[in-house]
Amino acid sequence: MKVRILVSFKDSVLDPQGQTVKNALHTMGYAAVKDVRQGKVFELDLEGATKKEAETLVPEIARRVLANPIIEKFDWEILKGRQGSSP
Amino acid sequence: MKVRILVSFKDSVLDPQGQTVKNALHTMGYAAVKDVRQGKVFELDLEGATKKEAETLVPEIARRVLANPIIEKFDWEILKGRQGSSP
Repeated sequence: MKVRILVSFKDSVLDPQGQTVKNALHTMGYAAVKDVRQGKVFELDLEGATKKEAETLVPEIARRVLANPIIEKFDWEILKGRQGSSP
Repeated sequence: MKVRILVSFKDSVLDPQGQTVKNALHTMGYAAVKDVRQGKVFELDLEGATKKEAETLVPEIARRVLANPIIEKFDWEILKGRQGSSP
């Protein structure tokens, strides 16, 4: 089973990387971009885990290892045979 | 309109950060985790863009700025009023 965990700064925390990307996009003429927030994504391959086990395991891993709960939040989902698409 | 862009290494490219996370998880006893791939996530707030405009703009921004097309792939989606969830 593949799961995807998204880790990003809490809304109350400044995101200098995102601000830098936003400024770069404005300089390049993409004025429609009003805000950018940057974060991390982890895709985990869990072998032999049921959905119920994943629901316990994944938040535990996210809290203990992947995210800093003081300044970051996380969200996760089970990937159902989806593939990343792009050239 | 909010869009989410996921940027990660192509499958053929080694991912040392993901390997390090995997090894750390194994050391901590999470043996079910068979593989970890790490990437970046960008959430963009596009003001006044229609879905059609976003379908042109977002892949262009991803290719030009957010991803290195030589070694990275990207995937994107429109966020429909979804909020990140976690404590």
